[in-house]
Amino acid sequence: MTTEGTSFVHLPDAWYAVAIAKTLRSTPRSSTLFGQPIVTFRDASGRPSTLLDRCPHRNVPLSLGRVVEGRLECAYHGWQFDGDGTCQVVPGLCRVATSRGRTATAFETREQQGLIWVWGVPNAIPTTDPPSFPHVGEAGYHTVYDVVEAQGTLHAAAENALDVPHTSFLHRGLFRGGKARNEIEVVVRRFSDRCEAEYIGEPRPSGLVGRLLAPGGGEVIHFDRFILPCLVQVEYRLSERSHLFVNTALTPLSRDRTRLFAVIAFRLPLPGFLVAPLVRPIARAIFAQDARILRAQHETISRFGGEQFHSTEVDALGPHILHLMRQAAKGGSSTATEEPYTRRFTLLT
Amino acid sequence: MTTEGTSFVHLPDAWYAVAIAKTLRSTPRSSTLFGQPIVTFRDASGRPSTLLDRCPHRNVPLSLGRVVEGRLECAYHGWQFDGDGTCQVVPGLCRVATSRGRTATAFETREQQGLIWVWGVPNAIPTTDPPSFPHVGEAGYHTVYDVVEAQGTLHAAAENALDVPHTSFLHRGLFRGGKARNEIEVVVRRFSDRCEAEYIGEPRPSGLVGRLLAPGGGEVIHFDRFILPCLVQVEYRLSERSHLFVNTALTPLSRDRTRLFAVIAFRLPLPGFLVAPLVRPIARAIFAQDARILRAQHETISRFGGEQFHSTEVDALGPHILHLMRQAAKGGSSTATEEPYTRRFTLLT
Amino acid sequence: MTTEGTSFVHLPDAWYAVAIAKTLRSTPRSSTLFGQPIVTFRDASGRPSTLLDRCPHRNVPLSLGRVVEGRLECAYHGWQFDGDGTCQVVPGLCRVATSRGRTATAFETREQQGLIWVWGVPNAIPTTDPPSFPHVGEAGYHTVYDVVEAQGTLHAAAENALDVPHTSFLHRGLFRGGKARNEIEVVVRRFSDRCEAEYIGEPRPSGLVGRLLAPGGGEVIHFDRFILPCLVQVEYRLSERSHLFVNTALTPLSRDRTRLFAVIAFRLPLPGFLVAPLVRPIARAIFAQDARILRAQHETISRFGGEQFHSTEVDALGPHILHLMRQAAKGGSSTATEEPYTRRFTLLT
Repeated sequence: MTTEGTSFVHLPDAWYAVAIAKTLRSTPRSSTLFGQPIVTFRDASGRPSTLLDRCPHRNVPLSLGRVVEGRLECAYHGWQFDGDGTCQVVPGLCRVATSRGRTATAFETREQQGLIWVWGVPNAIPTTDPPSFPHVGEAGYHTVYDVVEAQGTLHAAAENALDVPHTSFLHRGLFRGGKARNEIEVVVRRFSDRCEAEYIGEPRPSGLVGRLLAPGGGEVIHFDRFILPCLVQVEYRLSERSHLFVNTALTPLSRDRTRLFAVIAFRLPLPGFLVAPLVRPIARAIFAQDARILRAQHETISRFGGEQFHSTEVDALGPHILHLMRQAAKGGSSTATEEPYTRRFTLLT
Repeated sequence: MTTEGTSFVHLPDAWYAVAIAKTLRSTPRSSTLFGQPIVTFRDASGRPSTLLDRCPHRNVPLSLGRVVEGRLECAYHGWQFDGDGTCQVVPGLCRVATSRGRTATAFETREQQGLIWVWGVPNAIPTTDPPSFPHVGEAGYHTVYDVVEAQGTLHAAAENALDVPHTSFLHRGLFRGGKARNEIEVVVRRFSDRCEAEYIGEPRPSGLVGRLLAPGGGEVIHFDRFILPCLVQVEYRLSERSHLFVNTALTPLSRDRTRLFAVIAFRLPLPGFLVAPLVRPIARAIFAQDARILRAQHETISRFGGEQFHSTEVDALGPHILHLMRQAAKGGSSTATEEPYTRRFTLLT
Repeated sequence: MTTEGTSFVHLPDAWYAVAIAKTLRSTPRSSTLFGQPIVTFRDASGRPSTLLDRCPHRNVPLSLGRVVEGRLECAYHGWQFDGDGTCQVVPGLCRVATSRGRTATAFETREQQGLIWVWGVPNAIPTTDPPSFPHVGEAGYHTVYDVVEAQGTLHAAAENALDVPHTSFLHRGLFRGGKARNEIEVVVRRFSDRCEAEYIGEPRPSGLVGRLLAPGGGEVIHFDRFILPCLVQVEYRLSERSHLFVNTALTPLSRDRTRLFAVIAFRLPLPGFLVAPLVRPIARAIFAQDARILRAQHETISRFGGEQFHSTEVDALGPHILHLMRQAAKGGSSTATEEPYTRRFTLLT
């Protein structure tokens, strides 16, 4: 199967993560979404708001300013804006400041499960709630947050995050890649709003770590999942007490740059305070290798003026993710009751 | 009032400053004007000349060369050019060097009041003289020269240089921005070739400096002025003996980069040798803040593909400067006898 | 004579040098040819191969990978390619790896006289052999290899390499440029596939070096030559025992970037082991001056949107090189028996 063109798909009618909630304090935070500069800040009550990062007066980025009495103040002339974009102060002006033409463009903003979410269309009323993450905040689970950035489309980052075969090569040593070769049965299912790959027969990791995490041995339960338009989930269940659930919310900063907000929930036989400090460094070491490849992939695609991919059956989810995104862009989401598409193959690892 | 598009206006039939005269010595000086590379040098008699910065032979910049016997010599093959562009030497060639096709493009160049001026159209005869600066060289006045650069159109830099409301925010501490609030009457006048804002009722600066500069107290006489196509003047008269006149000649290096040649003439009750060394550092500290904002403004405008400004009545001169420039570009300068446009408003500072 | 436009000419049906053979070892070498990324590697037997530097699977550059059992392995998923581009391994896949769609694009590659050559058109059968260098490997001759890079078209680099008049200016001191002026007769000949300039009456260099190289005094035999599409030759014969033959193979990395592979063969009255270590440093010092000028020339041409050259009779070969290249691009190579074009002029040095 060959894919051509570019894998960027514009799906603005959705929630996208813009910040880890606890890192957003009184300083305005600049970002981009689909290439548009935006600025997120907390008002006097701590409620987050997001505006287009451009002062309506002289087009200076509002993110250069500061928050004054819960309003975002432009650094150039001191105009002040409410969270909904209304201009409340024009210094020097003797008349009322509020005026339609002076209103900054605003985006709906929500705080949920430790992330700040922004609705992708300005001045619009969201039709859904931000996605919720399984097991985050659940008794017995620890949660670690992290954010990283990749060059390339949201699709390229999502495929990479859910791809198993590359782990033995790119992450040799850190991840898979031992001598013993196993045959794993993979079941791929595509529903109307998501697709998943279930790995059946994957053995427990060998060595000390495997024995600590799953003292009884046995097989791993492993699911990889993509949920429209931006959510990626990787789930490993090694035993009743060992459960790792990696949620990643992908944000299309632009057509070719993607930010990944990882929310990692886990329950282990080991004490959380021992494990938690290791999660972020290990995840970052793995991601640094992915980021290098994604950048090189992006540069090559740019140089050739488009993607020219050739997939095999072991590319479990990438083509399905693109299919789902393109279907969604056409607006034709199928009904939820529809029978899922299913295929099976054997993966050699 | 809303402005859209970009504020670049192409007004080539005019003099533009390219160098502070005393800094132009025997080394050729490269620059740009409306995006065209140019090179300015002094001939044997010290007279400045300007050529297009491209050797007619193999298109190497002439500014890489040196001045030999008053002629600019190309660094590649040693062709030598007079100040009027005539090629006088082609090394290796046994015939006469001068030939129409070997002539470099030349720009009229003048030295006046400490600046080097270039006429914006090559191979053209200037229809005016370079602008003259009031009080420069006048008895009792000191003059300080400086040059800085800003990202953005000439209009953006001119509006910034003449804008009062931003000084309380951007230059908080350095400039205005005290607690006491004053109401100042502002009279804006637009003539056929210039516009000005007169500030009436502005109090003498408080504190020690104010008392030193204007021991008798009283009000400040303050004018801001733009003169087509590139001159900006800021005048403060604090007392009979305290007079500050800041001339700035703006040069459009390109559509989105502007160089500012400041010629600051002042007369103060304090000895000039005490004050002069402070003028440049203070002016630069203020300008560094402006340059940062102008760059951010420029980047935001570029990202959005154009300006989208919304002015209020306290934007005293910016819209009028743009109006004058656009009128001039249409060639329709009004007669000098026309009644000036006038409006008044109250500014809160 | 005035030339306009740009001097880039696309002549892909030819051999271009991509590496000095002895520097190509087990690590894949990335490069570009006419802007296309390519990767060259040696297989198990040491035979060099070249592929388009893009994995057909996910478009990652193959040059990030490594050579495994003579096959180039992609760093992302471990696909392995033979020298002819055939995919032999797809890790994880239980079926046969080889498949038409998985084949990488390949370029014919040859090793000859110490250089690695690539045919400019992929998946094509070469119609010639790579050019051979006179005196390389001949008894009594030493050979030094070097590679440098220049901004600008292949034509600009070739003209520079064969231009005599600039040496007195740009390389003043290093090369020509003494006080005494000589008149040299130059004969320019243009054949169907090459052009050359013969310098008659050029005196032996003065000073100690000249006396060592040509104890008997006399004149220098000096030829400069361009051979389609990419070969430049500079030959100096100072005496029966002093002979310097500089071959340079020019490679169009892109429309405006050129790599120069110098293969310098020489026979001198001095022992080769004394001279050889000096050749590269001297050549590099001269080339560093050329590279600076070529970069400045390229930038000026880019800024003005094209070349605007004006030649004189002392521009011996540049215009002829361009003529030959443009003729070749039209496909109209003249017959070899045709009478060569000839002109003579006197050069003052």
